[in-house]
Amino acid sequence: MNDGPGQPQGTLAMPSDRAWRGTVAIRFSHCDPAGIVYFARYFDLLNGVVEDWFGEALGIDYHEMIGPRRIGLGYANAGADFHRPGFMGDRLDCAVTVERIGQKSFTLRIHAFRMSEPVLVARFVIVTTSLESHTSIALPDDLRAALERYQENCQ
Amino acid sequence: MNDGPGQPQGTLAMPSDRAWRGTVAIRFSHCDPAGIVYFARYFDLLNGVVEDWFGEALGIDYHEMIGPRRIGLGYANAGADFHRPGFMGDRLDCAVTVERIGQKSFTLRIHAFRMSEPVLVARFVIVTTSLESHTSIALPDDLRAALERYQENCQ
Amino acid sequence: MNDGPGQPQGTLAMPSDRAWRGTVAIRFSHCDPAGIVYFARYFDLLNGVVEDWFGEALGIDYHEMIGPRRIGLGYANAGADFHRPGFMGDRLDCAVTVERIGQKSFTLRIHAFRMSEPVLVARFVIVTTSLESHTSIALPDDLRAALERYQENCQ
Amino acid sequence: MNDGPGQPQGTLAMPSDRAWRGTVAIRFSHCDPAGIVYFARYFDLLNGVVEDWFGEALGIDYHEMIGPRRIGLGYANAGADFHRPGFMGDRLDCAVTVERIGQKSFTLRIHAFRMSEPVLVARFVIVTTSLESHTSIALPDDLRAALERYQENCQ
Repeated sequence: MNDGPGQPQGTLAMPSDRAWRGTVAIRFSHCDPAGIVYFARYFDLLNGVVEDWFGEALGIDYHEMIGPRRIGLGYANAGADFHRPGFMGDRLDCAVTVERIGQKSFTLRIHAFRMSEPVLVARFVIVTTSLESHTSIALPDDLRAALERYQENCQ
Repeated sequence: MNDGPGQPQGTLAMPSDRAWRGTVAIRFSHCDPAGIVYFARYFDLLNGVVEDWFGEALGIDYHEMIGPRRIGLGYANAGADFHRPGFMGDRLDCAVTVERIGQKSFTLRIHAFRMSEPVLVARFVIVTTSLESHTSIALPDDLRAALERYQENCQ
Repeated sequence: MNDGPGQPQGTLAMPSDRAWRGTVAIRFSHCDPAGIVYFARYFDLLNGVVEDWFGEALGIDYHEMIGPRRIGLGYANAGADFHRPGFMGDRLDCAVTVERIGQKSFTLRIHAFRMSEPVLVARFVIVTTSLESHTSIALPDDLRAALERYQENCQ
Repeated sequence: MNDGPGQPQGTLAMPSDRAWRGTVAIRFSHCDPAGIVYFARYFDLLNGVVEDWFGEALGIDYHEMIGPRRIGLGYANAGADFHRPGFMGDRLDCAVTVERIGQKSFTLRIHAFRMSEPVLVARFVIVTTSLESHTSIALPDDLRAALERYQENCQ
């Protein structure tokens, strides 16, 4: 699995103890006929983790960004290594770390664990966009400040 | 976007003209409140492309693999670069190429275009598994042969 | 199942031969750990049938209604009787009939068959709304005319 | 809306104060390009409410039913009246009541409120099935007893 592009490297490195953590409860409908979490559903669940992290760790209301402020939080890149299957009834602890803060985008890494067992590592490049033009815009000041603060606190 | 792991590299390289292509029609329900295709839904739609490609290009029934044969086609890694937003009513042409054939897994690349415009490039590492034990197993012979034939035909 | 409110009655009555029919291919991701189509996914798939029916039978672009025209097609009521489970690989023929045309809403019935076998019958009360205020508005003239024409042609 | 079959009647009647209540947080991905909760997603979210209610109110593990016990909890009928649109950031209180306990099925009603405002009322006819044969089976004794106890406690 180290054979090329597309995979987070060193994904088994542990996130900081000071990283914010959210919990995802795996439900019946998250699973597929193979009896495990459907990979596309993971991306949806992790977007929910990002939403909660915005509010709870950054102090910024995700829905207010999209709604009243009309700032999109789009994905330029999304990827994940799936280390172990997830099952109905699992409770996954998801730790969010900020890997990079750019001009118009930032990169998050999410490590999901079942107890202490690594289940997946995802990496998202999120771009701030105008919801009128669907083009990228500079990170809003409050978001940039919050990301910097969070990143520093995690070190 | 060349700044690290997690991104397909050289993703704008064109797929072979001989690659199989499927079409995805973007519907209302594929889109989010930002008015564009929700990124997690793309992964779901692309799994549908893989299903169709199995049947039409490889000559192997995807559902029969999962069902009667009890062989899982799980994701060890999934990632995508999203180059342009997708909108309701778009019809995306999705070209599938085989990038790697391993012992227990293979890697696909899917380029999606709206007319000639690149919309996304995805890369999937798919592992064959036993649906009893959820552990990886060697690629079944018919699948390996079909992948090799397809890969060769695309060159 | 005739024991109360909430169920379409007489749902096994056959739709008119002149009703428009769309096809839904059941995929891996439409199914749940019980190995059959997940009931919520059916509602999503049937919304896709309604989209196609708009364009092909009514001659009205569903996405243009929602997008440029800013007219919502919301659900005041949605319900279905599930007669038989759906499985991966099924191809369901879905016949759409117009049951009622009101001032601000209309009622559709969709019968889905696997070959000649009834799989489900759904009934949708769809309300036209302003996407600014999210309140109901009168059916646009072109939509009303198309619904009336369709209803008449099916008799 | 009292004009025929398919609609829960008297849906604005309040559920018992003793009914179990679960909370659903409305996320970005639950909403559609119209900016409101996508109707099919409601059915998915309500299935999650039923899962939680099984564990917390009935004392029966939903996932254990489906998994180790191989008893399906399928939908013979599902329907909802949508009274008001749901928006990102809403928190819906969902009260579950048992309307009917049959031989091989039972009927639930779920009232969802945003604060005291009714948002939707759903009605589900859930059938217990064998996951081997996908045919209905008698309600298991523990489930029947728990449903009766719950129904009685709510009166």
